[in-house]
Amino acid sequence: MDKKAHKERYDAGLKTRSDVLGKSYVEKSMAAVDDFNQEFTELLNTYCWNDIWNRPGLDRKTRSMLNLAMLAALGKEHELKLHINGSLNNGLTKDQIKEVFLQVAIYCGVPAAVVCFRCAREVFKERGV
Amino acid sequence: MDKKAHKERYDAGLKTRSDVLGKSYVEKSMAAVDDFNQEFTELLNTYCWNDIWNRPGLDRKTRSMLNLAMLAALGKEHELKLHINGSLNNGLTKDQIKEVFLQVAIYCGVPAAVVCFRCAREVFKERGV
Amino acid sequence: MDKKAHKERYDAGLKTRSDVLGKSYVEKSMAAVDDFNQEFTELLNTYCWNDIWNRPGLDRKTRSMLNLAMLAALGKEHELKLHINGSLNNGLTKDQIKEVFLQVAIYCGVPAAVVCFRCAREVFKERGV
Amino acid sequence: MDKKAHKERYDAGLKTRSDVLGKSYVEKSMAAVDDFNQEFTELLNTYCWNDIWNRPGLDRKTRSMLNLAMLAALGKEHELKLHINGSLNNGLTKDQIKEVFLQVAIYCGVPAAVVCFRCAREVFKERGV
Amino acid sequence: MDKKAHKERYDAGLKTRSDVLGKSYVEKSMAAVDDFNQEFTELLNTYCWNDIWNRPGLDRKTRSMLNLAMLAALGKEHELKLHINGSLNNGLTKDQIKEVFLQVAIYCGVPAAVVCFRCAREVFKERGV
Amino acid sequence: MDKKAHKERYDAGLKTRSDVLGKSYVEKSMAAVDDFNQEFTELLNTYCWNDIWNRPGLDRKTRSMLNLAMLAALGKEHELKLHINGSLNNGLTKDQIKEVFLQVAIYCGVPAAVVCFRCAREVFKERGV
Repeated sequence: MDKKAHKERYDAGLKTRSDVLGKSYVEKSMAAVDDFNQEFTELLNTYCWNDIWNRPGLDRKTRSMLNLAMLAALGKEHELKLHINGSLNNGLTKDQIKEVFLQVAIYCGVPAAVVCFRCAREVFKERGV
Repeated sequence: MDKKAHKERYDAGLKTRSDVLGKSYVEKSMAAVDDFNQEFTELLNTYCWNDIWNRPGLDRKTRSMLNLAMLAALGKEHELKLHINGSLNNGLTKDQIKEVFLQVAIYCGVPAAVVCFRCAREVFKERGV
Repeated sequence: MDKKAHKERYDAGLKTRSDVLGKSYVEKSMAAVDDFNQEFTELLNTYCWNDIWNRPGLDRKTRSMLNLAMLAALGKEHELKLHINGSLNNGLTKDQIKEVFLQVAIYCGVPAAVVCFRCAREVFKERGV
Repeated sequence: MDKKAHKERYDAGLKTRSDVLGKSYVEKSMAAVDDFNQEFTELLNTYCWNDIWNRPGLDRKTRSMLNLAMLAALGKEHELKLHINGSLNNGLTKDQIKEVFLQVAIYCGVPAAVVCFRCAREVFKERGV
Repeated sequence: MDKKAHKERYDAGLKTRSDVLGKSYVEKSMAAVDDFNQEFTELLNTYCWNDIWNRPGLDRKTRSMLNLAMLAALGKEHELKLHINGSLNNGLTKDQIKEVFLQVAIYCGVPAAVVCFRCAREVFKERGV
Repeated sequence: MDKKAHKERYDAGLKTRSDVLGKSYVEKSMAAVDDFNQEFTELLNTYCWNDIWNRPGLDRKTRSMLNLAMLAALGKEHELKLHINGSLNNGLTKDQIKEVFLQVAIYCGVPAAVVCFRCAREVFKERGV
């Protein structure tokens, strides 16, 4: 794991998070940090967005596809929409997203895929793509 | 979806299944087909292994990674081991598999990743890699 | 599995889907088919609604009950509501739906059943039953 | 719910449990009751096996099918095997069990159905059917 | 398990449910009882809110924390919000709720914790705390 | 989150892990660390066993109970057994463990609780308690 100091990992993670999920979304999230969610925000920025996402072993497109697959399997709609958006920011094409969701249909079941296609439609509409 | 005749889809899927999961494993599975599991075997060979796996939109390495991520999220140990093996057959390196499972730790939780690392150890030992 | 040609399976599945989920709902879904969800729609109409739902081995009432049980266990609210509606179209009584959901409470836990009873209330209200 | 006294519900539930899961299995379970699992055993015999299973609204065959579907969705292998056995005791045919598991493949995903067909093979072998 | 008569268990459970989830919420729920959900309501009030919640072996704060952990793991948002509210009624501090949700992040994965922190924010806002 | 240096977090987490899961178990795990699972081991020792478990906000007994509840909900049998053992090391009584698992029965469903009671029996037997 990344053994750099907390502050460096935090900053590097926050930058990756902004690159992937979008600067305005992350700024809004950071503006809502308070006593209750501060430690969780630190955990997100260091653990998730630096220590994993900044590892060089897989590129961001692949990590986005893995996230779509896992979030579909876990049934986390809200996060799935964030990461459909993020996967487009990372350069995935709509056809590649479609392929992930067709594979979801077989392995996680048709209802999980129905959620995926519905969420994608909503994100595509919001982005106008 | 693939609109070819059932027989062609079945044969093409069975070939891909053998390529990925290993010829001897699949031959053993096919030898165990009986009245009870015949339709399910057809479903596996056509829908799963042809209609999805033979689509050109994603390469086999990527599909293997997606399967590892989904099977980890779903907690299906037996199938996970099959597909760790399959992912090696498809050319994934152990380092790439490790990256998938570290991402699982964050998104699906540490216990899901414990299962992954344990299953991988067992498969690596069986293959002597 | 059904070995008929793709087109025949597609048409027979689409008909069953309309019978179960309602003609207007399915027409609306079909009108929303685009490049992104076309293959998934084919998969739904052939694989799900023909190859499984049109098998003679179980009647539609039983298949509806199984779907209610699985969708409750999987926590898929949106699909659950569609299939509560579908189960009424297939002739299930409200008392039979209640029995399924009481069994869900014991086997899937009380929170899963809370979702079921809430969804049923909404569907019954929409239908005025 | 059943408003009879605890003792009556307990006895009636224990009888149904023996009818469904088999007398020797249940006798063995009851012989293993100790301080730790006594309350849970009471809960099983009253709530699950009397208050739900003894309700007249669905017959035992249907309840068995619902259990197979839910246990497959929940991924509970050990309990699934018990209830495959129970479903045969309740008069389901192997063809009906097959139909449930094919529907599982579509709605819960192929890996969930792989578990079902593997468990069924084991139970059928143990019973010699 | 509690061997008292149904009526006594029902009344004692309903009282605990009101204490935990709030009198006005429960009164509204009880006013919505009809033929469809009557047995489920009885099951909730006796089985869940008396036979488990009224057991002396764990205090209400601990039971609330367990519920938050389980509902997060199960992904039941609606119930999670009810029990965040209930945990405050039972005297948990916001800091204790935070600790539960940080532990959720590690064991159930980051997306499950994202849901928790979002739900908590909504409940805190509604209560003005 | 803990902002100390990686090495300090690692050592403090490893100590807590040994206290909870047992020295011999953890020594055996650490002896099996290799190139494949090294980063995951670091993640376990720092994030899980230091950054969460060493937070003062909840005592170890409470954290053990939360883990039992989450692992039951997630259906992770292998980890559940480790943490039943750990909860006894942390001073939980068998009666308190029983209470957690009875609450699991209601909220996660009876099959999840069957797994819990079976795992507990195995752990108690191994420890001779």
